[in-house]
Amino acid sequence: MSQLFFRTLREDPADAEVPSHRWLVRAGYIRRVAPGIYSWLPLGLRVLQNVEQIVREEMDAIGAQEVRFPGLLPREPYEASNRWTEYGANLFRLVDRKGGDYLLGPTHEEMFTLLVKDLYSSYKDLPLSLYQIQIKYRDEARPRAGILRGREFVMKDSYSFDVNDAGLDASYANHREAYIRIFDRLGLDYVIVQAMSGAMGGSASEEFLAIADNGEDTFVRSPGGYAANVEAVRVTAPPQQDPAGVGPVTEIDTPATGTIAELVDAVNAQFPRAEGPWTAADTLKNVVFTLQHPDGSSELLIVGLPGDRDVDVKRLEAAVAPAEAVAATDEDFAAHPALVKGYIGPVQVTESGVVQFLGTKGLSAVRYLTDPRVVAGTSWITGANRADTHQLNVVAGRDFTSDGVIDVAEVREGDPAPDGSGPLSLARGIEMGHIFQLGRKYAEALGLKVLDENGKLVTVTMGSYGVGVSRAVAAVAESTCDDRGLSWPRALAPFDVQVLATGKGDEIATAAEKLAQDLDAAGLRVLLDDRKASPGVKFTDAEVMGMPTSVVVGRGLADGLVEVRDRASGERLEVPIGDAVAHLVGVVRG
Amino acid sequence: MSQLFFRTLREDPADAEVPSHRWLVRAGYIRRVAPGIYSWLPLGLRVLQNVEQIVREEMDAIGAQEVRFPGLLPREPYEASNRWTEYGANLFRLVDRKGGDYLLGPTHEEMFTLLVKDLYSSYKDLPLSLYQIQIKYRDEARPRAGILRGREFVMKDSYSFDVNDAGLDASYANHREAYIRIFDRLGLDYVIVQAMSGAMGGSASEEFLAIADNGEDTFVRSPGGYAANVEAVRVTAPPQQDPAGVGPVTEIDTPATGTIAELVDAVNAQFPRAEGPWTAADTLKNVVFTLQHPDGSSELLIVGLPGDRDVDVKRLEAAVAPAEAVAATDEDFAAHPALVKGYIGPVQVTESGVVQFLGTKGLSAVRYLTDPRVVAGTSWITGANRADTHQLNVVAGRDFTSDGVIDVAEVREGDPAPDGSGPLSLARGIEMGHIFQLGRKYAEALGLKVLDENGKLVTVTMGSYGVGVSRAVAAVAESTCDDRGLSWPRALAPFDVQVLATGKGDEIATAAEKLAQDLDAAGLRVLLDDRKASPGVKFTDAEVMGMPTSVVVGRGLADGLVEVRDRASGERLEVPIGDAVAHLVGVVRG
Repeated sequence: MSQLFFRTLREDPADAEVPSHRWLVRAGYIRRVAPGIYSWLPLGLRVLQNVEQIVREEMDAIGAQEVRFPGLLPREPYEASNRWTEYGANLFRLVDRKGGDYLLGPTHEEMFTLLVKDLYSSYKDLPLSLYQIQIKYRDEARPRAGILRGREFVMKDSYSFDVNDAGLDASYANHREAYIRIFDRLGLDYVIVQAMSGAMGGSASEEFLAIADNGEDTFVRSPGGYAANVEAVRVTAPPQQDPAGVGPVTEIDTPATGTIAELVDAVNAQFPRAEGPWTAADTLKNVVFTLQHPDGSSELLIVGLPGDRDVDVKRLEAAVAPAEAVAATDEDFAAHPALVKGYIGPVQVTESGVVQFLGTKGLSAVRYLTDPRVVAGTSWITGANRADTHQLNVVAGRDFTSDGVIDVAEVREGDPAPDGSGPLSLARGIEMGHIFQLGRKYAEALGLKVLDENGKLVTVTMGSYGVGVSRAVAAVAESTCDDRGLSWPRALAPFDVQVLATGKGDEIATAAEKLAQDLDAAGLRVLLDDRKASPGVKFTDAEVMGMPTSVVVGRGLADGLVEVRDRASGERLEVPIGDAVAHLVGVVRG
Repeated sequence: MSQLFFRTLREDPADAEVPSHRWLVRAGYIRRVAPGIYSWLPLGLRVLQNVEQIVREEMDAIGAQEVRFPGLLPREPYEASNRWTEYGANLFRLVDRKGGDYLLGPTHEEMFTLLVKDLYSSYKDLPLSLYQIQIKYRDEARPRAGILRGREFVMKDSYSFDVNDAGLDASYANHREAYIRIFDRLGLDYVIVQAMSGAMGGSASEEFLAIADNGEDTFVRSPGGYAANVEAVRVTAPPQQDPAGVGPVTEIDTPATGTIAELVDAVNAQFPRAEGPWTAADTLKNVVFTLQHPDGSSELLIVGLPGDRDVDVKRLEAAVAPAEAVAATDEDFAAHPALVKGYIGPVQVTESGVVQFLGTKGLSAVRYLTDPRVVAGTSWITGANRADTHQLNVVAGRDFTSDGVIDVAEVREGDPAPDGSGPLSLARGIEMGHIFQLGRKYAEALGLKVLDENGKLVTVTMGSYGVGVSRAVAAVAESTCDDRGLSWPRALAPFDVQVLATGKGDEIATAAEKLAQDLDAAGLRVLLDDRKASPGVKFTDAEVMGMPTSVVVGRGLADGLVEVRDRASGERLEVPIGDAVAHLVGVVRG
């Protein structure tokens, strides 16, 4: 350690939001270069390489073959798949000295598709799985939490190529098993959830989420085993209702009812109901968003949902990807005077009767999508498209239809689970892996076809599978660190054992050095704290740096004893120095 | 091989200029993505990883510590060192979503300097050597020869940090020794030559050149052991001469003498000389260049040199780096009418006598630098700055002085060596490694200082050391391939042994597979050609792919024999199949 390139820092970095970020910087594992861009110091690089090796072994074990693509890629393939545009501002783009357009690869579906097209042409060549462990780039709007969400990061991405759907199912299942082994070996507490496929296209997909309070992803679980990223939760639509007993649309004066609560109070005051008071769930709230498309165009979208729920913008963006959604601004309303903020509703009462107002075929000509709970026959209190006025008895299917269903209302703890097994519970996680059944999207866009058994050209079907390799370092740190520092599982630790020489005198220094050499000779990876520093500094640093086991060679040496400390449990054990090597080999090798 | 992702190609790639490029593509090792940008297929990646491992081991052996910097870097540090501008069009630049300027790192001096400044502050922390094996980017004007000169490539770069010059000498020597071990292990035939430091700044530097007819670098060697990149050769200036016997500057009519040869003929016809005919070496040729600076500005430069030599533009560009030099165009001459193309000379004969014409203080006010051979007292035939007119007896020092010396004339086979040991010989090579004594340039620009033993702040002195890791794959291929394909040295081969099952029948296939399994169990890396292909295809592919040893399980099996082939020598040996494993382990392990 007197020669190791590191420094432990006593202060938290100013931008540290989560414990893993704080400790990885303070323990000398990583160092910030720019927002979302980090350098790996010797200790951090060893952990990263340990993760890489685990991932490599498990990919090799399922017969996936390692390749390596460049990070700097030409525009054309991404133009063909439309991702040059769809990725929007998340893509780093640049121009070379000859004016050619390039990008820094955010993920490599196009390149793998073209490579296989380049070399293979027959069903006999398939199935095939290729992978790389490589640097990726995404110009995140909000890089955060150190290496947890960076703009340059290490990813393992793999791609499977099959001649038919059954083959894709098998390749997907192989990857799923490999991922289970990878995340088990990393020691992560994780959950496999149904996921949206986002900008990747494709159909079936699952995420591996490390359970973490600081995670950016929210997921749900049911008593029956259903698990999904909150963006992928699909609400079960209630049965249609018979509106026969519902009166006609009735306009009511509702001055100063800017909020749903005020509206409900006003309605209960004016129109008390026999079966109990009206609630927010009886109102139909219509929320206006602006969708910004990656090509620069934008459009309004109105989402109609029960007034007791808000739109979850992450769920909305997942539903409208690759567009981004922002709440409509005062300028947007000014540009659409027909939309009366706070009083928007699906129908308009005119002299000739009730006419559709929202929707592409309505008077407003604005796209209108409704929550799955707004089924035919349900009756709602909603806006009358005039200030201080609402409507009662607005019945879906009878008085209006929407342009379609959009399932983007917030999901709540206790909501009924889609599998019918009971209430949903919510938790947060860090996305560590994602497996997709891409299908034929990229193969079609780029013309990857092979001859099948009958000599007929068929389009190849693909899967795409990612592991956040650098993110795994942060996720493991996040799940294992405590208020004293890092605490690595053995599989990832930069060193197996840290030997601390504490106390003055050549005897202690010599004994510590000899013990370190003996441990090294026994095949352990040993870090020797030979610095001229106080025992207190050495103890503190050892806890900050987080090797799973440390050995203190100090006062006890006079009695022939050293102290073995377990970082995770805090256990301490005095061991005769003559037994120390055998004892530690046993501890490390398990 | 029935499952390995590769294809051998029967045709050369259209852009292949050198054998290594041709064979690496044809054998399925690499694949082009864009000019100077390649993907590594499974076979190629294994070779690359073998090179990386050798480099890593030798860097670790000298106590250098591995780190990893990002490829995407912020502008500011490169602005501080002036390289943001100096790198000119060779730098890939880009802008992020917030308008920040970034670059793709061409080399990381600035970043390492800042990292050490960030963590270290005392002489006690030094010496320190850090390295990374990482992807670099340079927007080469002429990417060529596959991965030999790419725009994205893998480099090992390391940096040493010392408190004084003696420390730098020691760090430099350590790296030099490590490089010798690396290139020895790679099996390269190489030479260590004195080098220019180019855009890196700094003083002493040496290059490791792999000797190769297709190399881009020319180097010289002397019988006495002097060796230098041709750009670094320094001509020994002849002694000054006494011009006492030389007459005054005399103007002579020389119509139609556009070339040096015509001029020499005209002078010999008009002014025959007792001591033998005039030669081109008696003329002073003045060549006009435009220097284009990275900041976009440009200026004229006139180089005066003996007429029997041309300016070597690579030597010139090394001398004026980071400027680029191009021959002056007709437009340049039109803009400077005082410069009469073909008749430019250092002096003008006027009514008041001989006056200086070239040089910043001459009538033309154009910068004028002369070859080291143009020493004081030497007399020259040169242009009179008037069409069809030259001058005799123009004496350096007496009639003119230049703005300085520039040593950029072409170096020729047989020129006297600077070490006085005899004639120089010339050869070509591929730059594989470069070691620099950078000195304090970057530490000064970025403020890297430490406290010395006396508590005084001193600027750290640095070394910078590079190995072309991906280039090494090409250089080794270039030096070992033949007209049948690749031929890897054992240390780099993707597999130790290729087992070929040739001939029909389950018996052969079963025996080949069992042999492959036994070799694998014995710890060898084995590639089994189990394809349904003819023996001819398998033999040809084995030679193209270039594993050092192959074993043919075929016709001989009936007699209990297999054939062991050595790819490099072509030797073939029949071995009883029962002895094959022991024999091959011996062959591979040496």
